[in-house]
Amino acid sequence: MKQILVLGAGQSTTYLIDYLLKEAPKEDWFVTVGDRDLNAAQKAVGEYASGSAIPFDINDSTLRATQFQKADIVVNLLSPLFQHLIALECINYGKPMVSASYAQPRVKELDLDANRKGIIILNEMGLDPGIDHMSAMALIHSLYKQGGVITTFLSYGAGLPAPEVNSNPLRYCVTWNPRNVVRAGEAGAQYMEDGKIKVLPYHNLFNRTWTVDAEGVGTLEAYPNRDSLIYREIFGLDDVSTMIRGTLRYPGWSETWQQLVKLGLTNETMPIPNLQKMTYREFTQLFLPLHISGSKLTNRVANLLNLSPTGKIMENLKWLGLFSDTVINGEATSASDVLTELLKKKLNLPPDARDMVVLIHEIEVRFPEENDRRERLKTTLIEYGDPAGFTAIAKTVGLPAAIATKLILKGRLPMTGCHIPIKPAIYTPVLEELKKSGLKFKEDVTPL
Amino acid sequence: MKQILVLGAGQSTTYLIDYLLKEAPKEDWFVTVGDRDLNAAQKAVGEYASGSAIPFDINDSTLRATQFQKADIVVNLLSPLFQHLIALECINYGKPMVSASYAQPRVKELDLDANRKGIIILNEMGLDPGIDHMSAMALIHSLYKQGGVITTFLSYGAGLPAPEVNSNPLRYCVTWNPRNVVRAGEAGAQYMEDGKIKVLPYHNLFNRTWTVDAEGVGTLEAYPNRDSLIYREIFGLDDVSTMIRGTLRYPGWSETWQQLVKLGLTNETMPIPNLQKMTYREFTQLFLPLHISGSKLTNRVANLLNLSPTGKIMENLKWLGLFSDTVINGEATSASDVLTELLKKKLNLPPDARDMVVLIHEIEVRFPEENDRRERLKTTLIEYGDPAGFTAIAKTVGLPAAIATKLILKGRLPMTGCHIPIKPAIYTPVLEELKKSGLKFKEDVTPL
Repeated sequence: MKQILVLGAGQSTTYLIDYLLKEAPKEDWFVTVGDRDLNAAQKAVGEYASGSAIPFDINDSTLRATQFQKADIVVNLLSPLFQHLIALECINYGKPMVSASYAQPRVKELDLDANRKGIIILNEMGLDPGIDHMSAMALIHSLYKQGGVITTFLSYGAGLPAPEVNSNPLRYCVTWNPRNVVRAGEAGAQYMEDGKIKVLPYHNLFNRTWTVDAEGVGTLEAYPNRDSLIYREIFGLDDVSTMIRGTLRYPGWSETWQQLVKLGLTNETMPIPNLQKMTYREFTQLFLPLHISGSKLTNRVANLLNLSPTGKIMENLKWLGLFSDTVINGEATSASDVLTELLKKKLNLPPDARDMVVLIHEIEVRFPEENDRRERLKTTLIEYGDPAGFTAIAKTVGLPAAIATKLILKGRLPMTGCHIPIKPAIYTPVLEELKKSGLKFKEDVTPL
Repeated sequence: MKQILVLGAGQSTTYLIDYLLKEAPKEDWFVTVGDRDLNAAQKAVGEYASGSAIPFDINDSTLRATQFQKADIVVNLLSPLFQHLIALECINYGKPMVSASYAQPRVKELDLDANRKGIIILNEMGLDPGIDHMSAMALIHSLYKQGGVITTFLSYGAGLPAPEVNSNPLRYCVTWNPRNVVRAGEAGAQYMEDGKIKVLPYHNLFNRTWTVDAEGVGTLEAYPNRDSLIYREIFGLDDVSTMIRGTLRYPGWSETWQQLVKLGLTNETMPIPNLQKMTYREFTQLFLPLHISGSKLTNRVANLLNLSPTGKIMENLKWLGLFSDTVINGEATSASDVLTELLKKKLNLPPDARDMVVLIHEIEVRFPEENDRRERLKTTLIEYGDPAGFTAIAKTVGLPAAIATKLILKGRLPMTGCHIPIKPAIYTPVLEELKKSGLKFKEDVTPL
């Protein structure tokens, strides 16, 4: 019997844990789920006989020793904070590791050590990063085999409510860690457009949007997602002159969010005294210059932001509750905490509503050996959640890591070292399994 | 003989080390200066017989053990990164510690451990933080003794070129770590004005300035310095309705710096590929939207920033070299690196020029038992550097830490625990010694 140690049983892990527990009897696995919150671990394991929940504190070295030693693989779903420690311990005890988080530079540096121990440390096995990398690499490698030269690479990802959901004017629902929504883009972004590198500071990020058509969904808007430039090298795209990874929203989100950033409401470094006792109205006033005249708060905000006081953006800010007389309460200590709680309250996915995951690649390629024929390839993955079961985001984030776990235990990913899924030896079998699970990319080709 | 271990021999430490070495023979001290760069340590010790330079890597635990064990006190002048580790080791080996850095929350948490070991961990013993705290607290406590109620507390600090220095249009010279100049204000700021808390995001910080008169210097401008609110509690200023700590510059600095922040040139999280090979002109273009029309780069920048293309601010940006065809070179990997190197080149203090330190407190107080008499107190410290000797900034940052070291070794600061210099038992003897060294606050009182 193979032992799987799953670390973390938070909101986003349900699908993955359920998948492993369901497969366990026929694969002869036993799944131990550890979380600081034993209740969460117990809830994740439920009535399955092939699993067990344990209280788990990652800082407890004795506990780590016992549990890592008896495991055959560690699935790390804890905060990225612990990625390095867990990778070190996996190397220490010679156990393979899988996670859905971005690989940290200092974890990549453990490559030689992982090779020495003969284990794989496999990160970025989620949706974005994860499925996006794998599907992009499959496409890129196939075009290279046909003699293609890739000139443009655009890649978009998002977790959104399905098109029929109309529960709020921003057309966004929090189906993921809301803190990440509030802090999105905090480091700014950079990308390449027509051969020029473009760098954007945080406070201008949500102003530089463009439209993207998603088949069956309609027109969405995109804003640049972090550092797109590093993927030129990672993906081997030396010839591209346009290289952008973007995040998708329904049109209108970014123009409103831009104003929240401009006001300063997304700051999390500055603890504001007595925040819980303030009303939202008082909170919003903190971000305005000292009030001298008698004009209305909404007018002063509109004025400062250079917005129409009666326009759509001000409507959205009002709808969010930033001018309400309700007391904030809760445990907020920073502006970003207040905004996070507000999103959780106002932008929840209604119980009977479907969420949706969208992943789009748009590639322009020319074939020098075919008279420089040029074409545009667009591949689209759209996956809907099941209101009675799992969300699309939980499924698409959890499935790649679950599949990788299975493949490693079955000896079908025999690589060693620190990896992200950009090599055929990893993405080919994983994409195959994803297809069997019903995830399919639709492909359109347009001659240029 | 008492052993002093000084960690760090960087640019800012020269005065302090010189002071200790000069006092050493008559006080029967021996001063060991350790730095990763042995040359720097040797240069700091020079020909003094009462000192010795050693190569010192803070991450070497054996070296730490040997050196901490034989020391009677540790003077920590290393990066704030190592504050916690050094405090832990001082407690471990039972040695008092002095530093000029802001006390970190997790170092404050070691208070009980320091008390158990019977040693003092004393941070914020520089200029700002340091002399500013001590002089403010002396003033505040004296007003409280007179029955005063403090309603307004404004405090300003700066290291600037002396008024006669006119070597550049920004009237600023780098006399300190230039990286800190580039990253100043990165976390935003908050303060209290007329009873209202005001919070400012980074991208608006340098727009919210006001004028401050410094006697003998003229009119300066101030921008809010970090989180002023935490000092309401630390200083015991429960009744103030206006509480602002500000940083001073000659007028015109902030309106120019605001534009660099707005463009995004101060970002240090995003590594930009091939930065060293670009010209400054190419670098500046990275931060503009994609160039379609044929207009001049300077016009496009002025346009984006909503500035007059021929005005003073654009003049300053040109003078800084942001539109030059010179190749960047060096080792810059982020925008903030490029700006740091540019400041070092363009804003250096000329060899025969004096620098200057300004510290101002402005306090409004009422005396309820004296018919609610009200007055404004303004205290001003202005200290000039000596072009043939030490800069004012090196002296005013180094002197408080040096004095504290002496007082601790002589048993005149017998407190234990983690402290910053806000208690009379610390600030009274230190201010007395500062006065003897010629640092004097001028005091003005205006009835209101």
